[in-house]
Amino acid sequence: MQLYNYFRSSASYRVRIALALKGLQADYRPVQIVKGEQFADAYQALSATPLVPLLVDDDGSRLHQSMAIIEYLDETHPEPPLLPRDPAGRARVRAMAQDIACEIHPLNNLRVLRYLVRDLGVADEAKDRWYRHWVEEGLAVVERQLAAAPSRFCHGDTPTLADCVLVPQVFNARRMNCREDHLPNVVRVVEACMALPAFEATQPAHCPDAA
Amino acid sequence: MQLYNYFRSSASYRVRIALALKGLQADYRPVQIVKGEQFADAYQALSATPLVPLLVDDDGSRLHQSMAIIEYLDETHPEPPLLPRDPAGRARVRAMAQDIACEIHPLNNLRVLRYLVRDLGVADEAKDRWYRHWVEEGLAVVERQLAAAPSRFCHGDTPTLADCVLVPQVFNARRMNCREDHLPNVVRVVEACMALPAFEATQPAHCPDAA
Repeated sequence: MQLYNYFRSSASYRVRIALALKGLQADYRPVQIVKGEQFADAYQALSATPLVPLLVDDDGSRLHQSMAIIEYLDETHPEPPLLPRDPAGRARVRAMAQDIACEIHPLNNLRVLRYLVRDLGVADEAKDRWYRHWVEEGLAVVERQLAAAPSRFCHGDTPTLADCVLVPQVFNARRMNCREDHLPNVVRVVEACMALPAFEATQPAHCPDAA
Repeated sequence: MQLYNYFRSSASYRVRIALALKGLQADYRPVQIVKGEQFADAYQALSATPLVPLLVDDDGSRLHQSMAIIEYLDETHPEPPLLPRDPAGRARVRAMAQDIACEIHPLNNLRVLRYLVRDLGVADEAKDRWYRHWVEEGLAVVERQLAAAPSRFCHGDTPTLADCVLVPQVFNARRMNCREDHLPNVVRVVEACMALPAFEATQPAHCPDAA
């Protein structure tokens, strides 16, 4: 398998965590988003979208969208499972992942921040406020769900898709100095995750392209 | 079952389509987003997030996030399936759904458009350009995938999760006069969907709160 990704892309980090939790190896293929390599012909020939991550499986399947990739890995390599067995639990995990992947992250993507500055003339300070607004409000939605049924990880005693999505978002939040005093359960779960090598060893600072 | 939703919310329309494809009935509970009813105590007591849709199942389970709800319906009411059987096919369907639900729709949500105008002082004309930019660019990503492996619906000869997400996005696109001359396969698939009662009968104009 090859994983096309970028060290600082939180969607890429989600998939790196899932691969590590499954004990799977993938060749690390860096795509320098800040340099625009996602628009280069070589990447466009591989990927339907100018975004990372992209997973190329050994049979040639090319998969994009991080949550879809993680569900694919979970279906093709079922152990350890990244979703609970019961439909209501699965829906809870997917909803928490989507609360981040659909409501926070898309608003703070590099291409969106660039559009704010370049096309709408938004000042840097207002752009940073925008960033923090969606993170702080969005993570409060996850916090509410964690507080309503606390467990070691987002759902139960083992990491799931929700943890794979939560931890990279909190990395971004900290890089942008977002508030987290309203997120005690989020902070606690992230600590539990970071105690596991699958989360720690794959974090942005440890990627080959981080230097 | 009860579905809390809003006629013009495309995330709500996704779930209405899925329920109809499954032949399931749900009480229609309107939440007037434009009036801020999603922030009212009554709704906050039910939902972890001030967004629609919210599905309350007969056992009391409360589910949010439209894609998570649709997967839940597919797991609890397997016929007709809304995902293919093979992992690569499932990943393709989920990726197309997420290309819309993660890359287009969040940027054009009412709360985001309001932030642009009220907090960032963006003019209406520039806001509309922002809206169309993400729709036109985002749907081109779906078009590329449909063109690479054309079929009657997004994936194969029966509607899937991807169609449930695509059609409501195209409704929004048309309401905002977005370009679609670069989307022949998208337009063709939407036509095939709209020929089915599950898509036609649940469209915004036919909802009880549309009047």
